Amino acid sequence: MQAYEELMAFQRQTEALGQVAGRLGWDQETQMPQGAAPQRAEEMGAMEAVLHARRTDPRLGEWLAAIDDDALDAVGRANMRILRRDHARHVKVPADLATALARTTSTAQRAWAEARAADDFAAFRPVLEEVVKLKREEAAALADGGDLYDALLQDYEPGASGAGLQAMFDAMRPRLVALRDACMGAAHQPAPLAGSFPAQTQMKLARELARRFGYDFRHGRIDKAVHPFSSGSGLDVRITTRTSEEDPFNCIYSTIHEAGHACYEQHIAREYLLTPLGRGVSMGVHESQSRIYENQLGRSRGFTAWLHGRMEEIFGPLGMDRDAFFATVNRLQKGYIRTEADEVQYNLHVMLRFDLERQVISGTLAVGDLEEAWNARFEADFGYPVDKASNGCLQDVHWSVGLFGYFPTYSLGNVFSGCLFKAMQGEVEKLDEDLRAGDTSRATAWLAEKVQRHGGLYEPAEVIERACGFAPDVEPLLEYLESKFGDIYRL
Amino acid sequence: MQAYEELMAFQRQTEALGQVAGRLGWDQETQMPQGAAPQRAEEMGAMEAVLHARRTDPRLGEWLAAIDDDALDAVGRANMRILRRDHARHVKVPADLATALARTTSTAQRAWAEARAADDFAAFRPVLEEVVKLKREEAAALADGGDLYDALLQDYEPGASGAGLQAMFDAMRPRLVALRDACMGAAHQPAPLAGSFPAQTQMKLARELARRFGYDFRHGRIDKAVHPFSSGSGLDVRITTRTSEEDPFNCIYSTIHEAGHACYEQHIAREYLLTPLGRGVSMGVHESQSRIYENQLGRSRGFTAWLHGRMEEIFGPLGMDRDAFFATVNRLQKGYIRTEADEVQYNLHVMLRFDLERQVISGTLAVGDLEEAWNARFEADFGYPVDKASNGCLQDVHWSVGLFGYFPTYSLGNVFSGCLFKAMQGEVEKLDEDLRAGDTSRATAWLAEKVQRHGGLYEPAEVIERACGFAPDVEPLLEYLESKFGDIYRL
Repeated sequence: MQAYEELMAFQRQTEALGQVAGRLGWDQETQMPQGAAPQRAEEMGAMEAVLHARRTDPRLGEWLAAIDDDALDAVGRANMRILRRDHARHVKVPADLATALARTTSTAQRAWAEARAADDFAAFRPVLEEVVKLKREEAAALADGGDLYDALLQDYEPGASGAGLQAMFDAMRPRLVALRDACMGAAHQPAPLAGSFPAQTQMKLARELARRFGYDFRHGRIDKAVHPFSSGSGLDVRITTRTSEEDPFNCIYSTIHEAGHACYEQHIAREYLLTPLGRGVSMGVHESQSRIYENQLGRSRGFTAWLHGRMEEIFGPLGMDRDAFFATVNRLQKGYIRTEADEVQYNLHVMLRFDLERQVISGTLAVGDLEEAWNARFEADFGYPVDKASNGCLQDVHWSVGLFGYFPTYSLGNVFSGCLFKAMQGEVEKLDEDLRAGDTSRATAWLAEKVQRHGGLYEPAEVIERACGFAPDVEPLLEYLESKFGDIYRL
Repeated sequence: MQAYEELMAFQRQTEALGQVAGRLGWDQETQMPQGAAPQRAEEMGAMEAVLHARRTDPRLGEWLAAIDDDALDAVGRANMRILRRDHARHVKVPADLATALARTTSTAQRAWAEARAADDFAAFRPVLEEVVKLKREEAAALADGGDLYDALLQDYEPGASGAGLQAMFDAMRPRLVALRDACMGAAHQPAPLAGSFPAQTQMKLARELARRFGYDFRHGRIDKAVHPFSSGSGLDVRITTRTSEEDPFNCIYSTIHEAGHACYEQHIAREYLLTPLGRGVSMGVHESQSRIYENQLGRSRGFTAWLHGRMEEIFGPLGMDRDAFFATVNRLQKGYIRTEADEVQYNLHVMLRFDLERQVISGTLAVGDLEEAWNARFEADFGYPVDKASNGCLQDVHWSVGLFGYFPTYSLGNVFSGCLFKAMQGEVEKLDEDLRAGDTSRATAWLAEKVQRHGGLYEPAEVIERACGFAPDVEPLLEYLESKFGDIYRL
């Protein structure tokens, strides 16, 4: 299998270069001096040009034609599954369109940031119209006459479909709305956390929390950034967090969330390093790891009991007992911002985006009508009007950089995390006792063994089903949420 | 001149990718988690393969053949001078060898750091043997039957030769040895600095000193590293330094030294950004800037008078007056470490390395005999034996990363700095008065105007001659040293 060996050697360098490009992004957000921005744009452009040339290298087609997948072992076949899919995608999109998309989305991101700062959707509208026009062209090139939105989805969640996600959301919506209304209308309401929490102490706690969730500092580091993220695969997976002196939960749960993403990458089998299998298999599975670390483990009654004690040790008295603290951590609030939403309302924010972006891509909603549609939908879903565009349709960066089809993977990740937690509860002994001691090691080891180590070996839904022993379904997440929040709000 | 435009557009991306590779090196020394080393080696290898492919791209030869240099302006001709020379060199080195060198030296650097920490040359020896083997292969590929060492020299100092450097060292050695012996034997000996100097305060002072020497933090940053260095060109030029609580001069003069390198890169004309002219023209000219910042300016009677006052403000009384402090800063001491050597003995350390590395590259000295040869030579030159490998042949990083031919450019830089200082004294008014006030602005502006802004426009010796009005020669440096140290030691 000489063609396979050559292809994998070529791909190994491509993967390494992809890691370098990712590292530049990390540097830009954490280390780079401000005046370097124009030069960095040229550096990133040059790296993108190199990566694009490799993804469309004519030798790829020759290797793929020469390789007989059936002659390979399971790992080889999985590599080929990913390489063939990526290659088919890259040959379908004309080079001119790919270039136009790269150029437009890079300009659009800056235009979005300016429009968001000025709360001015009208200023962003023509730019977004151009992005949408190009993404629809790309979707048409990819869809081969099929559904445009489904074609885009495959970039983030191979195997998913708009119809399947619609069914998932339809099953979730009434029960989440009922739960939200019951919690918001309950007589018993958790108190907010009061006090001031020094940023440096929060960063020390962040390092401890990352360690407690299994993040390996020999292969990573934590820095501050405006928006928390995880970056890199394999032996160098870095995370960022942020601090707010009034709200330590922002730092704490951003850190645990990003540690979940990072642990997934760190725990992928070493033999897959710098191969197509050496990265998380999909956005949905990635999000299942970050969300189960953050929510089912990090916001559990057990772990918050430990966290309450630890926070009182390092910050002083919190003015509430463990039970009240558990409720405070999980408290529902009104709010416009998806990334700050509690577990119950989070998926309602995603549904709004999913419906609107499907209409935009199908062509039934014009970009010019997007702000009005967002605002009407938000008020219908949440019961209060959007006050400004930065709290509405300009709040997320995704659409400006062309990420149509990305949003629903957040909810899919939540659904997967619900399934995984149900299975974990059946298999990991003394889970609650461990969490009360601030010990996540058995829980995270179960995830590493069942999900993380496989990297891209299985298709997304398959890795979840193999881990759980049942097909992914919304029921475990909904039952978990109804039980947990029914308890907190004494419903 | 379509071919010239196309070549320069291609080269711009290559320069940008070169900056990315440099940034990875910076990351490795300042930020990278230790366990990432094996992956980083592959990332560096992949970047090196990309750069090598671009440097040997067949289109380069076509463009070079199509371009009539005489039809270009002076900037165009200078670009072509560098591009034609680089192209001639790069086509000679096989891609496999370039990739092997990148991968091996990245691993070797880590091995060197570990061996140095353990004072164990034997542990490093096989790694260094591999580096030397590959460097000799590279030199043979480049030399076309000529001298191997001269071939490697061209990477650092175009136009230099081992024989020319030998003549330079021969002219310097007797007068430096005589001056060293006179100073060491003088009745009057400067006192050492006593006390403890908090690392954090040193880092604050380092930032102030960098600023005072014109370093621009909008386009740079300072971090700590084991071995201080400057990294990057154009809009992003970062420096590193180190601290020792007993010896603040280490941090102070490392910082000023690296600021000299970085200011050179920062002051190159903006129109040369990401072109072959947008980098310092040679290591020797680079070192002339770092050394004149560090020594002729930073260790002058004037500047040390200001530094004495500033250090007493931030660290408390130093227990000596300005004159004594000037002598202490410049004090000759026995010592093993090149980077800590005084101005008189510094070049003696370089001569030792120059002679040994010429022998290693010519094949007359085996790596297995290097430690013994170093120790014998050191005792002969300095009069006392090396006590451990980290004070001997493991003290410098250079050989581990394959930089054979780099060391003599340090002395060449000293010689250039002597010439530049002589010219500066004739042209910059109130130099001593400025330095006494801690103000280097007129001196550094003179260097920016005469040397730094030109980048690669002129050949190394030419830019020095144009700045000084006379051809580079050892005499100004030797006269400066004899005068300054004759004064300090009352000879």
